[in-house]
Amino acid sequence: MPLITLLSDFGPGKYVAAMKGVILSINPEATLVDLDHDIPAQNVREGAFVLGAVVPYYPSAIHLAVVDPEVGGPRRPLVIEGEKGILVGPDNGLLLPAAATFGDFTAYELSNVEYRLPEVSHTFHGRDIFAPAAAHLSLGVEPSEMGKAVRSLVELDFGEYEVTEDVIRGEILFEDRFGNLITNVPQEALPSWTSLGGSYSLEASTIHEVPFVKSYTAHDPGKALLTLSSDGYLEIAVNWGNARETVGLGPGERFVVRKSSAKKS
Amino acid sequence: MPLITLLSDFGPGKYVAAMKGVILSINPEATLVDLDHDIPAQNVREGAFVLGAVVPYYPSAIHLAVVDPEVGGPRRPLVIEGEKGILVGPDNGLLLPAAATFGDFTAYELSNVEYRLPEVSHTFHGRDIFAPAAAHLSLGVEPSEMGKAVRSLVELDFGEYEVTEDVIRGEILFEDRFGNLITNVPQEALPSWTSLGGSYSLEASTIHEVPFVKSYTAHDPGKALLTLSSDGYLEIAVNWGNARETVGLGPGERFVVRKSSAKKS
Amino acid sequence: MPLITLLSDFGPGKYVAAMKGVILSINPEATLVDLDHDIPAQNVREGAFVLGAVVPYYPSAIHLAVVDPEVGGPRRPLVIEGEKGILVGPDNGLLLPAAATFGDFTAYELSNVEYRLPEVSHTFHGRDIFAPAAAHLSLGVEPSEMGKAVRSLVELDFGEYEVTEDVIRGEILFEDRFGNLITNVPQEALPSWTSLGGSYSLEASTIHEVPFVKSYTAHDPGKALLTLSSDGYLEIAVNWGNARETVGLGPGERFVVRKSSAKKS
Repeated sequence: MPLITLLSDFGPGKYVAAMKGVILSINPEATLVDLDHDIPAQNVREGAFVLGAVVPYYPSAIHLAVVDPEVGGPRRPLVIEGEKGILVGPDNGLLLPAAATFGDFTAYELSNVEYRLPEVSHTFHGRDIFAPAAAHLSLGVEPSEMGKAVRSLVELDFGEYEVTEDVIRGEILFEDRFGNLITNVPQEALPSWTSLGGSYSLEASTIHEVPFVKSYTAHDPGKALLTLSSDGYLEIAVNWGNARETVGLGPGERFVVRKSSAKKS
Repeated sequence: MPLITLLSDFGPGKYVAAMKGVILSINPEATLVDLDHDIPAQNVREGAFVLGAVVPYYPSAIHLAVVDPEVGGPRRPLVIEGEKGILVGPDNGLLLPAAATFGDFTAYELSNVEYRLPEVSHTFHGRDIFAPAAAHLSLGVEPSEMGKAVRSLVELDFGEYEVTEDVIRGEILFEDRFGNLITNVPQEALPSWTSLGGSYSLEASTIHEVPFVKSYTAHDPGKALLTLSSDGYLEIAVNWGNARETVGLGPGERFVVRKSSAKKS
Repeated sequence: MPLITLLSDFGPGKYVAAMKGVILSINPEATLVDLDHDIPAQNVREGAFVLGAVVPYYPSAIHLAVVDPEVGGPRRPLVIEGEKGILVGPDNGLLLPAAATFGDFTAYELSNVEYRLPEVSHTFHGRDIFAPAAAHLSLGVEPSEMGKAVRSLVELDFGEYEVTEDVIRGEILFEDRFGNLITNVPQEALPSWTSLGGSYSLEASTIHEVPFVKSYTAHDPGKALLTLSSDGYLEIAVNWGNARETVGLGPGERFVVRKSSAKKS
């Protein structure tokens, strides 16, 4: 049974339910799995981050993603084909981090009207274009039959990070439900002066001395710490607590980690 | 594999999980799809609106819906059979808009105790009466075996709307997650003086000049507009914004759209 | 098709989606059902209550539950096997009320690295240990192959309750979405001086005269009442209203019900 996953900023309700009905009307054998429908409204960047973080854990599947503030405008609808799966969604950068996990991939515009609903609204392409495309793909239609290949895709900005001899500067990408703050600094970019067990200085509204530890439980309850997120990014967390509240940072905000926690700047 | 959808005001948790367990205990082959469990508590009208909007996108299925503030009282449990599906839920109007999308339909009272749990609580008929009924229906039991036919069903009030030579008066039915306001004025009732591209006057706490456009992106970011909802109703929206906040209207409140945006009353 | 249910405090999003991907990568035939992912963060007691209340409604299944504030610390990962199903989760009491519904059961530590992901993070055992274990169990691996039997399990405190000749003292365990308050006093512990139809005195911030009734609709709208929860516990509710707001009690707080509603203390 073909697997179709769904991600959106629609909230889990009416709009997602309509997309599922469209899919099951075209392919009643499809297996549907929700990835996340609580992406903040119109937050393409957070949708892209979550999709890219989750897709690698799936077997080959069709991933349907809709965070689409420009619906009804000129932005193109896309299907992206890789060896490890297929992505369906708008050309606004939403699909790119997930596509990158495929290695090589090819993108096509979803222009073939045969694979849309007969009537296409101007406000809900998730139901009228993306869901039918995903369903037809799950029946074995080739992505290349859906439209012509697309060369240049719309990129997305995940913020800058900088690593020097004594400073890491980066941005908070994502806050999870526990208030853990995942940054845009990947594990492989961490400078050689950082190491598990070390202690550093985190500059937010106030300065926190933060140990870099393997797990939340390795520091005192209620105190801020650095760790590696389960996706391999630098993460700011609090054992038995909420880092967003403790350090006063949130998605889109910048932070500094300094080598020596002794010298305050 | 028979398809059973679920809608409720229970929130996605314990109560829905119990209903699914009951269904799968009776028919382990059932495929379950959630429509919406975030209907505002005891809001039968919003549940009815969502169910009626979503059911037409589904293939033939059994739709189980529970928004049931009068559970334990004398209201009847129902099954409604149409050519395009089966509805199960309380007789409080919740099922009627969906039933209307079937064309002809027949309703039966769920009175046969054979298709209930052995013990029926007074506070949770979703688990004890409706879920077992849906599961037995998915195994092929005929609706007519569940109880006697019911003639007159409890109606539901979706509010009045009025259309004259220069005014539309209606009510906000539903606010979606983006703050889009879906009204109770269907597309086919719009007066001949409205047309895409025209500009009108929306009277709320203040007066907004609103263009009637095909898609959100056809107006300036942050400004109120009129469009057609993806379900075919007049909708008040804001491109890249939240209409509820911008115009200060919400579900249950009334609005006026006036022909000439030049003359303010 | 083997059934795997999921419960967590992760919220319905990224973390749950990763666990499902891991399961479907190991066993693409698994049927997945969400029990509840909105358990308040790190609230082991509420997770345990919900799991124990819901599991009895399921056919034999593998129940995967993760409310795991001590992830990365020394707490053990467990599988519990009973005649009516299998439970997978941390050894912090989360699984015990559900295990008790099995009658006899045996617990094993999930120590066999063969049934984990190749790399195990220190912050997300739901994905790296519990989900793979559940998937392998669904393929027929025996719980006893996963590690050695565990004798003494970590217990959980559900609060004291006391019943005397004229008083019930207990604790609010759980607030549902409607504001209904489920207490820790089971139906079978109610004193002989309570009976349906009787009237009692509920002492909260103020004193409420409360009838003990079969269903919400048996009392006036907006007034507090006592009833039996659909799980068989004493429940404080309000017909067409919210008991939490009306009586000012919430989870973790204690209450008193007094025999004579006439005498106020």
